Amino acid sequence: MKIYVNFELPEEARRLLEGFEVVGPGGDLSEVEAALVTRLTPEELAKMPRLRFIQVALAGLDHLPWEHIPPNVVVAGNAGSNADAVAEFALGMLLAAYKKIVQYNERMKRGEYDRVYAVPMLRGRKVAVLGLGEIGTRVAKILAALGAEVWGFSRSRREGPWRFTTSLEEALRGASAAVCALPLNKHTRGLIRYEHLALMAEDAVFVNVGRAEVVDREGALRILKERPRFVFASDVWWGRNNFAKDAEFFALPNVVATPWVAGGYGSEEVWREMAVEAVKNLLAWARGETPKNIAKRSDYV
Amino acid sequence: MKIYVNFELPEEARRLLEGFEVVGPGGDLSEVEAALVTRLTPEELAKMPRLRFIQVALAGLDHLPWEHIPPNVVVAGNAGSNADAVAEFALGMLLAAYKKIVQYNERMKRGEYDRVYAVPMLRGRKVAVLGLGEIGTRVAKILAALGAEVWGFSRSRREGPWRFTTSLEEALRGASAAVCALPLNKHTRGLIRYEHLALMAEDAVFVNVGRAEVVDREGALRILKERPRFVFASDVWWGRNNFAKDAEFFALPNVVATPWVAGGYGSEEVWREMAVEAVKNLLAWARGETPKNIAKRSDYV
Repeated sequence: MKIYVNFELPEEARRLLEGFEVVGPGGDLSEVEAALVTRLTPEELAKMPRLRFIQVALAGLDHLPWEHIPPNVVVAGNAGSNADAVAEFALGMLLAAYKKIVQYNERMKRGEYDRVYAVPMLRGRKVAVLGLGEIGTRVAKILAALGAEVWGFSRSRREGPWRFTTSLEEALRGASAAVCALPLNKHTRGLIRYEHLALMAEDAVFVNVGRAEVVDREGALRILKERPRFVFASDVWWGRNNFAKDAEFFALPNVVATPWVAGGYGSEEVWREMAVEAVKNLLAWARGETPKNIAKRSDYV
Repeated sequence: MKIYVNFELPEEARRLLEGFEVVGPGGDLSEVEAALVTRLTPEELAKMPRLRFIQVALAGLDHLPWEHIPPNVVVAGNAGSNADAVAEFALGMLLAAYKKIVQYNERMKRGEYDRVYAVPMLRGRKVAVLGLGEIGTRVAKILAALGAEVWGFSRSRREGPWRFTTSLEEALRGASAAVCALPLNKHTRGLIRYEHLALMAEDAVFVNVGRAEVVDREGALRILKERPRFVFASDVWWGRNNFAKDAEFFALPNVVATPWVAGGYGSEEVWREMAVEAVKNLLAWARGETPKNIAKRSDYV
């Protein structure tokens, strides 16, 4: 079987593919049956008429050219492969903002030593976890261990140390904090609007480690301007890698911003694990087993 | 029994003292047998010849005028009463610094969007927890739940999800991070010196939420200047509330600083719980029971 791989695989992942004929960009793709990719263009797709399976090495699938993928091609993602990395980051963002660590540090660096913020308890407070996938469940479990009253929001019921709801309003009403780890698809695009954020506590912290587009940009901007004590802490931005497009957010004092690095940016360890997971899933498909993380085409098209 | 109280008690704590004769500052202290205090001066002590018990409402006891306290007076602290607050803060400081959230946020606010730091995993890394009291054990348990390899350092053995050691060197050698929650007493003053910090990883994060004086000031300064990737994240400073005295630390890019607020600064909830715990402990002593957190005089004198 010919497999198309369009990025450089770490050694450990490459070894798992021994015995298969691996074709890279520039090779003859006419006989390729499976593709292992990070991104994929319509042009690449057009060269693979016999393609039956796409394994994406990244967690998100929203960037694929879905309109160009034939309906009979199975697409699998890699959710969970860097979930530990993202969960650690999400907790760090939440606590850094909620406990006023970022805010006080900024002041100390300017020589402003007076204690202008109270430092609230997270224990006992309502915290919403939006999305109960691999990342959300990890975050929710640690928040529960810290004694927070965790509300888990998801389309389908998941059991865990949280109160489950399918209502975004119920999850966010009165919450002191929220962590958004929803995937981006046609159901979640623009899902979280001003009126949802406005349900949260006056001084709530909203953390996003999923995709920026899940949150309505203008709604976020409005709540931040209306409520100076509301904090928006996000690793993901609407301009994607063009951060300058969202500079008006970074200029606000109640924004904590990082440049899309939560998934273990620059960590060889994380990237190796992601690549190995992706190859293993592709091998499961090749053996005729059902791979993990099969995308629902109807979520995207 | 007459009880001296030298600070304003929250309502809930005051009610617990009904039935006792409470004397405040300015009252006749000659018959006082127990004192409930935050701080205490030699002058106050001199007015209480019949004093048998001092209940301190704060966690630390290092600020008491130990030389003036007669050896027959029992002193009890309030360790643990705000341990949840401090543990949340310590985890926030650790993750904010270790995951480069503070560092990236500072850059984003300056319009510097390039990804200059790798974001490492905490899972699987050696993390030292120095001091296994109420705060340290809470922090250690959450770190263990995050998958870190936790090493617990304490004078006396405590069991938990960590590798226990009485050797500071063993705890810190090769560690990616450390959280210091040691009390300040004559055994711990200046305990952590340059050579200990130098045992840690090149890009380690050292968090202090205990007392500044446990760490040798010049040693900390030296490691920060020698190792630009080493991060010192601290809520406590050698100048105590006179933060300007430690401004040379805040000027360093590898320092994360907060102004002694970890114990739930400004949180009525935390203060109420602390006061109630202190009164309950005093009542236990009044009933002839053994109160919690009795100080070892030999730790301070």
